[in-house]
Amino acid sequence: MKAAILENVGAPLRISNATLPELGGKEVLVKLAYAAINHRDIYISKGLYAGIQTPCILGSDGAGIIEEVGGALNEDWIGKEVIINPNINWGENENFKANTYQILGMPTNGTFAEYVKVNIDRVHLKPEHLSLKAASALPLAGLTAYRALFTKGNLIANQKVLINGVGGGVAQFAFQFALAAEVEVYVTSGNAEKLKKAIEMGAKDGISYKTESWAKDLAKSSGGIDLAIDSAGGKGFADLLKVMNPGGTIVTYGGTRGKVDGLSPQILFWKQLNILGSTMGSDTDFKQMLAFVNEKQIEPTVSKVFPLNEVNEAFDYIEQEVQFGKVLLEIN
Amino acid sequence: MKAAILENVGAPLRISNATLPELGGKEVLVKLAYAAINHRDIYISKGLYAGIQTPCILGSDGAGIIEEVGGALNEDWIGKEVIINPNINWGENENFKANTYQILGMPTNGTFAEYVKVNIDRVHLKPEHLSLKAASALPLAGLTAYRALFTKGNLIANQKVLINGVGGGVAQFAFQFALAAEVEVYVTSGNAEKLKKAIEMGAKDGISYKTESWAKDLAKSSGGIDLAIDSAGGKGFADLLKVMNPGGTIVTYGGTRGKVDGLSPQILFWKQLNILGSTMGSDTDFKQMLAFVNEKQIEPTVSKVFPLNEVNEAFDYIEQEVQFGKVLLEIN
Repeated sequence: MKAAILENVGAPLRISNATLPELGGKEVLVKLAYAAINHRDIYISKGLYAGIQTPCILGSDGAGIIEEVGGALNEDWIGKEVIINPNINWGENENFKANTYQILGMPTNGTFAEYVKVNIDRVHLKPEHLSLKAASALPLAGLTAYRALFTKGNLIANQKVLINGVGGGVAQFAFQFALAAEVEVYVTSGNAEKLKKAIEMGAKDGISYKTESWAKDLAKSSGGIDLAIDSAGGKGFADLLKVMNPGGTIVTYGGTRGKVDGLSPQILFWKQLNILGSTMGSDTDFKQMLAFVNEKQIEPTVSKVFPLNEVNEAFDYIEQEVQFGKVLLEIN
Repeated sequence: MKAAILENVGAPLRISNATLPELGGKEVLVKLAYAAINHRDIYISKGLYAGIQTPCILGSDGAGIIEEVGGALNEDWIGKEVIINPNINWGENENFKANTYQILGMPTNGTFAEYVKVNIDRVHLKPEHLSLKAASALPLAGLTAYRALFTKGNLIANQKVLINGVGGGVAQFAFQFALAAEVEVYVTSGNAEKLKKAIEMGAKDGISYKTESWAKDLAKSSGGIDLAIDSAGGKGFADLLKVMNPGGTIVTYGGTRGKVDGLSPQILFWKQLNILGSTMGSDTDFKQMLAFVNEKQIEPTVSKVFPLNEVNEAFDYIEQEVQFGKVLLEIN
């Protein structure tokens, strides 16, 4: 089968032939229609990730059709259109992942290939209102956004929500999920075009984080934020505390701008703020995310689709940070 | 009546005569036996606090005997031994204090005086197992410690708890409350004598935060911390994240070492950590704290008692940071 293989860290992925996986009794073979790219894939390809093993087929997200099932499984599964939960061994505790936790696509071979094998408990029927293309965008980013916003962030009615860095995969889902929850949503971005699109989609306001006055402007526009979803960290994070309402919560799922300096404990305790780390989500979160997407008929935003052969070009595109929504690979 | 009055910010408190307060219908006059000193009193006297109004009688904590009641109240209250809840107008939301919130002792006249008047709903019967002296140590610090440990920190059985800077008023209560909850408690201090005392009282281990290796030593000794209670912030805070177990929580109620630099979002989200700001506590927290102190028969640790006349010397003593437990003023 054709696959995008990481042979050496730091080198482009190579499109070549890989052996079709052999199924265990409770595994299924999914013929992938589309895969979605996550920053994780790019970090791994550059060696910016712990415990990298090569060669490996990358890719955590995919949607396709079950073509074959293991001996212990009912053949009725064959032909079903499914999406894949990228968690492997989250474990028993909803609050954090187990030591044995992995994400599909390194070390286990992932979805940047014509076929992927996964355990039957990793597949879910594709939401009916979505194409396989749209559904492939959902798993990792949708899961991360759902846990950040609802499980950890505990979003409730009448709150004001801030999505920092709208347009990125997770942020875009957090933005759409918050809109679907019918709360007031504010966004930031460094890109005027993305702010414009977000406002068209329903954001109350969009502020460029590149201005010195972004925090003041946001505080003035919103009257204060109850829940902020951030993946930047770095320089702006300390100012974010000033925008938060008393009792407010910041959920952080990334640190693209590096370590946080100048964080004021006084603001933190005086306003009784909460800073909650979150990444990925449990299998329970995944099921709840799917239920929410179905209930609210959410349509993932797709920024651009590349053929599998152009996976390295797709990585470059993501690194330009111009995307608004997910970047996909068309496979079959 | 004799009172310790802040006449000018930056000057010592002056012991002089103040007018005996007149009671409203639902107010009571408490003849104070003892008052306890909090860092808040010292910060206010130095001008390191927002909205300072002078002249004012400082002091948030006190225990004494009700000597007179307002016209709307039952005279049965007279003669009761009570402690005072220092909250004024916490408000309706358990998660944060209202805009109108105040703490007894600036701008409202406080407990560093022979008498204080408070609303009847601010007094609670002194725990039976405590003297008025011991009970006076409890209110502000006990409330802050209770909320940090239980309401925000959500301490549960079998957790490993870290109390940073043991010996200070709030930290000392957090330490004793955690011991009473029968969990494993670890402490840090810059003072070898305090570490020794804490271990004698039941701490599993005590680590000097002045060593470069404190975080590694603590991680090795404890095998990882589930709940940390911190009032320092500053330089050590970023290292604290490394000691936390996955899903762990740091509750921060102070920032004596200033702003936090070098905080890693990656550790925060990868381990699904929570950093929760907390200060004081709601009236519900106060009632629960009293119930806990009664149930567990907790005896507050008193470091030293000064006569009211020596309030400035007592402030100096606290600033030397040698105390282990609360510093009291003997009044009547």
